[in-house]
Amino acid sequence: MLVIIITIMVLEIKVPHGNDFNALRPLIPVTVSYVLSFIYIAIYWNNHHHLLYTVKQVTGDILCANLHLLFWLSLIPFVTGWMGKNHFAAAPMALYGVVLFMASIAYWVLQNRIIKNNGPEFILTKAIGKDVKGKISPILYFIAICSTYFSPWIAGSIYVLVAFMWLIPDKRIEVILQHEAEAAIEPVQKRAKST
Amino acid sequence: MLVIIITIMVLEIKVPHGNDFNALRPLIPVTVSYVLSFIYIAIYWNNHHHLLYTVKQVTGDILCANLHLLFWLSLIPFVTGWMGKNHFAAAPMALYGVVLFMASIAYWVLQNRIIKNNGPEFILTKAIGKDVKGKISPILYFIAICSTYFSPWIAGSIYVLVAFMWLIPDKRIEVILQHEAEAAIEPVQKRAKST
Amino acid sequence: MLVIIITIMVLEIKVPHGNDFNALRPLIPVTVSYVLSFIYIAIYWNNHHHLLYTVKQVTGDILCANLHLLFWLSLIPFVTGWMGKNHFAAAPMALYGVVLFMASIAYWVLQNRIIKNNGPEFILTKAIGKDVKGKISPILYFIAICSTYFSPWIAGSIYVLVAFMWLIPDKRIEVILQHEAEAAIEPVQKRAKST
Amino acid sequence: MLVIIITIMVLEIKVPHGNDFNALRPLIPVTVSYVLSFIYIAIYWNNHHHLLYTVKQVTGDILCANLHLLFWLSLIPFVTGWMGKNHFAAAPMALYGVVLFMASIAYWVLQNRIIKNNGPEFILTKAIGKDVKGKISPILYFIAICSTYFSPWIAGSIYVLVAFMWLIPDKRIEVILQHEAEAAIEPVQKRAKST
Repeated sequence: MLVIIITIMVLEIKVPHGNDFNALRPLIPVTVSYVLSFIYIAIYWNNHHHLLYTVKQVTGDILCANLHLLFWLSLIPFVTGWMGKNHFAAAPMALYGVVLFMASIAYWVLQNRIIKNNGPEFILTKAIGKDVKGKISPILYFIAICSTYFSPWIAGSIYVLVAFMWLIPDKRIEVILQHEAEAAIEPVQKRAKST
Repeated sequence: MLVIIITIMVLEIKVPHGNDFNALRPLIPVTVSYVLSFIYIAIYWNNHHHLLYTVKQVTGDILCANLHLLFWLSLIPFVTGWMGKNHFAAAPMALYGVVLFMASIAYWVLQNRIIKNNGPEFILTKAIGKDVKGKISPILYFIAICSTYFSPWIAGSIYVLVAFMWLIPDKRIEVILQHEAEAAIEPVQKRAKST
Repeated sequence: MLVIIITIMVLEIKVPHGNDFNALRPLIPVTVSYVLSFIYIAIYWNNHHHLLYTVKQVTGDILCANLHLLFWLSLIPFVTGWMGKNHFAAAPMALYGVVLFMASIAYWVLQNRIIKNNGPEFILTKAIGKDVKGKISPILYFIAICSTYFSPWIAGSIYVLVAFMWLIPDKRIEVILQHEAEAAIEPVQKRAKST
Repeated sequence: MLVIIITIMVLEIKVPHGNDFNALRPLIPVTVSYVLSFIYIAIYWNNHHHLLYTVKQVTGDILCANLHLLFWLSLIPFVTGWMGKNHFAAAPMALYGVVLFMASIAYWVLQNRIIKNNGPEFILTKAIGKDVKGKISPILYFIAICSTYFSPWIAGSIYVLVAFMWLIPDKRIEVILQHEAEAAIEPVQKRAKST
């Protein structure tokens, strides 16, 4: 799904008619907004992959929360296009923030439902821990939305900042998964010996 | 497939040229129709996931019925776009109902072929039972199609109603699958002991 | 891939501006050509599913033949759109035939490479047998291409005819696969007993 | 993803309004550039399939490198469209080369991260060996980009040349994988006997 969203966003970068590099100049804002959204969708894809990898049983609850997240992510190509076409004006910048804000809430709901369905002993529960990034992001998006009242560039800076914050690799889940995997091998070996 | 249909529907929400929130006002009907269709496709995705999850052997029969369902669902982006562009006029509302009606019949045929291929002892046969929702839906769509003769708003209300009816989580298949899973563990354990 | 081609073909059915059923009248030829192409892609999907299901090892050879088939199938949305927009004129009808002809040859090459890679004892080799449909289809497409010189309707009739010929369920592979599966269970049971 | 990129490129070949073969003449450059890009994406798909097939554990590092590759490949439909629309003018030809150059670097990074994550004993490490093609390609792309200053046709010839160079089947990974598979069966059989 996220892969399709990425590919569809490229369709917003309309092929220009001119045949020199000047013809590409009007495309710069659209391309910049494409790169930003590509990074956001890529981060969601990466985290989503890790999140669903740990789930053993997909219930209706989780599917529902997942669809809710997909709904907000599916609006990203639209807001990306609007933002790019209007050279990062205040209104599109605010709407972009609203969609990111709702998506981050939807992700948080999905994460919580998965944890709730699997109990406190669940690997993910430990791996996520305090989840500072997940809690700060919606707050930063909210500040960005409000800041567009003064200048859209404050919002833009916040969006870039949050994207970079998430780009710093988050090895928590990976590391704990590996520990658990190693811990899981031992009892299996013991069981194998005792047979 | 359903994921691609969802993503393609977003393409109908054309990026506006204005750079304030007033520019978004003409997009409200298109967005409303997008949300309604997103919910419908999401419900089909969810149920389709549960339905095919129980199938062990995919025969040509089932593939055919599946493609028939996909054909009607593939028309949803078109009717959604027509409905949104014409502010929910009578004709698009009726056509939207026709596509939903045909899709619900196609789903019913797919479900029956799967049950027929797997015998009465099959988990799904028990799980679906009387299938009240599945039987009421096409009737309601039919009433909605006829009602557009008087007012498209009656049809619109029925479409929203049916969508909400399906949104109420249907735990039948899930619950019975879990029972079966638990029941299935016991004989395996017995067999393991007897070896 | 085939699923994406189907969904992209729907994009050719442009949403009309009128809000009554008369507005849909100009869309009839596009829709008819969409239905025909949907059936063709669906048949390829079904057969492709059965074909690749039997392959155990995907070599570069098979991947190459598969991509060659996908190339011709990827042109179907274009020729479908051209055919529909020009109310089934001679030139688009001929080009539609050329793409179907090349796709059927590409399918035949893919099938042969799979058989060659797996030896004469391979299930599929027995299942396909004489492959009458696969040999007749390119000949019929060739006749259709030539017939557009006289009338595009002869070609159209042949395309519909071939589609129906393939729609008649082809249980060969399914039946033989089931026999093989049953035959395979016996030695396993014997081995299980001997342990 | 690569499959979606291919299908989206077809959308650049706009359906013409004329109903004879002359109407197709303006589409020739777009079609030629589509065929070239189809071959490039197909080659990446093929190699990507072989590359990821060997990976047992997908880390955040690899996902990141993979997304970087996808970013550059996602720009191919845009540059293909620009190149085709302007009849292979110098600027689009140079940009096409830049995207191919960046994609080849991204592929090289992805390949190296996979090797690094799996150690020198890893199958892929042996299979890739000196990787002459992988090292020559970016150099040839660089020469092509510079050559557009004199004539876009030199660049075009280089792109076709590199595509053909990669089309020659590269059996290295396949052969070594098969050797390893055969070697792997023996210890398993020994272990089975010793139990």
